[in-house]
Amino acid sequence: MALHLNDDAGPLLAVSQGDPAGIGPEITLKAWLRRDEIGAPFLVLSDPAHMKAQAARLGLRVPVQSCDASEARAVFSTALPVAPLSHEATAEPGRPDPATAPSTIESIETAVALVRGGQASAVVTNPIAKQVLYQSGFPHPGHTEFLAALSAGPGGPAPHPVMMLWCEELAVVPVTVHVPLRSVPDALTTELIVATGRIVHREMKARFGVAAPRLALTGLNPHAGESGAMGTEDLAVVAPAIGDLRREGIDAKGPFPADTLFHPAARQGYDVALAMYHDQALIPIKTIAFDRAVNVTLGLPFIRTSPDHGTAFDIAGRGVARPDSLIAALRLAARLSRAAKRAA
Amino acid sequence: MALHLNDDAGPLLAVSQGDPAGIGPEITLKAWLRRDEIGAPFLVLSDPAHMKAQAARLGLRVPVQSCDASEARAVFSTALPVAPLSHEATAEPGRPDPATAPSTIESIETAVALVRGGQASAVVTNPIAKQVLYQSGFPHPGHTEFLAALSAGPGGPAPHPVMMLWCEELAVVPVTVHVPLRSVPDALTTELIVATGRIVHREMKARFGVAAPRLALTGLNPHAGESGAMGTEDLAVVAPAIGDLRREGIDAKGPFPADTLFHPAARQGYDVALAMYHDQALIPIKTIAFDRAVNVTLGLPFIRTSPDHGTAFDIAGRGVARPDSLIAALRLAARLSRAAKRAA
Repeated sequence: MALHLNDDAGPLLAVSQGDPAGIGPEITLKAWLRRDEIGAPFLVLSDPAHMKAQAARLGLRVPVQSCDASEARAVFSTALPVAPLSHEATAEPGRPDPATAPSTIESIETAVALVRGGQASAVVTNPIAKQVLYQSGFPHPGHTEFLAALSAGPGGPAPHPVMMLWCEELAVVPVTVHVPLRSVPDALTTELIVATGRIVHREMKARFGVAAPRLALTGLNPHAGESGAMGTEDLAVVAPAIGDLRREGIDAKGPFPADTLFHPAARQGYDVALAMYHDQALIPIKTIAFDRAVNVTLGLPFIRTSPDHGTAFDIAGRGVARPDSLIAALRLAARLSRAAKRAA
Repeated sequence: MALHLNDDAGPLLAVSQGDPAGIGPEITLKAWLRRDEIGAPFLVLSDPAHMKAQAARLGLRVPVQSCDASEARAVFSTALPVAPLSHEATAEPGRPDPATAPSTIESIETAVALVRGGQASAVVTNPIAKQVLYQSGFPHPGHTEFLAALSAGPGGPAPHPVMMLWCEELAVVPVTVHVPLRSVPDALTTELIVATGRIVHREMKARFGVAAPRLALTGLNPHAGESGAMGTEDLAVVAPAIGDLRREGIDAKGPFPADTLFHPAARQGYDVALAMYHDQALIPIKTIAFDRAVNVTLGLPFIRTSPDHGTAFDIAGRGVARPDSLIAALRLAARLSRAAKRAA
C-alpha cells in the first residue's frame, strides 16, 4: 500500500491507547509534554474522558482535546489531540479489566484505518495485555499478528510481519521470536531465514533509506558451531540461507559467533543483524539501550513502531513510568514518515 | 590448597606461553611494556630464544632475561623474566605446529606447579589451540579441564571448574558452556545449577572479597518462560535450583528474563549473574567490554585468569595484536593475589 497523505499535510502519528489500565495513558501524556523532541504531531485513539482523568490523577498539566485526524495537527501544539472511540475505556490503573478490550481493539483498528486511508503516516502502539484481550475472545496470538491480519487485503493472505529492535547504535531482528529455547533449532529453517532476510533487506532500503543494506547473521550455536564441532545447524541451515540471499544480490554475511557481533567496533560492519532467537537479539540491544530501544514491525504495508516494554500494571497510576521508549518509538515513526514522504 | 607464599615476597604471576605460533608471545611482550598498569610482576614460562626472536621481529624494545621464579621479581622492572622449559618452542607466527605441543603443555604444567609450590600467586594462561594439542595426543577436552586435572590430588577427583567472564562492570557465569544450543535444555539440570551456584558463592566471598554475594540467575527461555507459557524449564529446573541455593543461605534470585538483566541499572542488583548457556552469558559482557573481558576459572585450588580470546593465528606476527585482554587478566590476577594474601 502506498502512502497517500495530502501533499500539504506533514506526518501525523496515530497512537493506539494500549491497555487503559496499563502505563499507556501515563506515558502518552508525558510524551506530549516532551513533544518538542518528537518531530511530528500525534493523535491518540482513545476515550478523552479517561485521558483527562489520568492527567488529573497524575497531576500532569496536559490539556486534552477531543478532535479528529484532520484537526489534530492544529490542536497538537496546545493540547493533546484524542480521537474518541465508540467504546468507553474507563479503567482503574493497575487493574486490567476485560470490559475494556473492545476499546483497546477499536483503538488499534482505528489507527490502522487512519494510516491506510492516508489520514495518518504511521501507527505507534501502546502496550496491550494479551491475556486481557483473550478473555474477551480476541482470536490473534498477539499485537503484531493482529496488525498483520488488519493489513491483509479482502480475502488476501496476511503479510509476514518481522520484528526489529532498533536504537541509534544497533538494529537487530530475531528470526525466531516467542518460542521456547528447546523449540528454536527445529523452528529455524533456511526458508524462514531467507524470507526474513528479504523483508529486512527491502525495508532497510525502502523505509530506512539505506541504499545497499549490509546484513550480518549470527550462528545458532556457540562460536557459530565451530565448523560443525559444536552443532550442525550453522552449516546445514544458516549458511545455505546466506548463500541464497547473496545469490539474490543481498549483502548478507555470516554466520558469525553471536557473542562478538555486538560491540561497538563490530557494529560498524553491518546495518542490521539477524539473530536466530529471542535472547540472542534482545540481550545486546537491551544491554546497551534499555530505555531507548524501539520495536519496529517490518513487512506490514505501513510504518508501525512501539515502545519495547509491556503494560507494567504494577506501576500504573503511580506517576513513575518513564516515557522514554514511547518517545523513541514516536521519534522513529516521525523519521520514517518523513523518509516515506520524500520517497513518494 | 592454601597459598603459602613467602611472607616477604609480593605476588608473582606465572604466565603460560600458550601456542607459540599464536599471538601469545606478542601480547606478552606488549603487556610487559605496559607493566606499570598491572600491579604485580609476572614470569613467563617459555623458551627465552623464541621470546627474544619475537621481540626482534616485531621491533619491540623488550629485554628478555632467562631466570627462575625466585629471581623474577628483581628482574621484572628492567627485563621480561622468562623461565626456560625443557622443550623448545620455536614456531613461525601464524603456522601452528604440533611439534610445539610438548612445550605448550609443559608451560601450563610448570605454571601450576609454581603456584601449588608457593613460588607464584596465580596462573595466567595465554591462548592454546586445542586441535594442535590433540594432534600430539593431548587427552583433555580443553585448557580448563587440563588445569582441573593438574589440580586433582593424587588419586583424587578433579575439581569442577566454573568459567566466569569478568570486567569491572559485570561478572557472569554460563552454567552450560560449549554445547550445541540444541543440547542445552537437557544438559541444564537443577543439580548442575546448584553446584555452579555454590562454587560461585564460595569464590565470590573467598577470592573477590564480597561478604554476601548476590547471585542473579537468568531463565532459559524468552521472558524466563512467562510462567510456563513459553517453555517449562524455568519453573521445573531453574526455580528449584534457586530454592535449593536459598535454603543453603545463598542470596540467589530469579529466574529473570535474560534480555533485561544486563543494562547498567539492572547490574546494580547483583554481584554475579548466572546465565544458562554460552551466548546468554557472553553476549552481554562482550557487547560492553569486548577488549577488557577476562576469563576467570573458579573451582580450582588456585587463581587462574586468561584473556578472553583465542590464538588469532590469522594476525600473529604482524604486530597488530592488542594486549588489552591479557593486561586485564594480569591485573585481575594481581588483584586476586593481593586479596588472597590479605586473607591468609
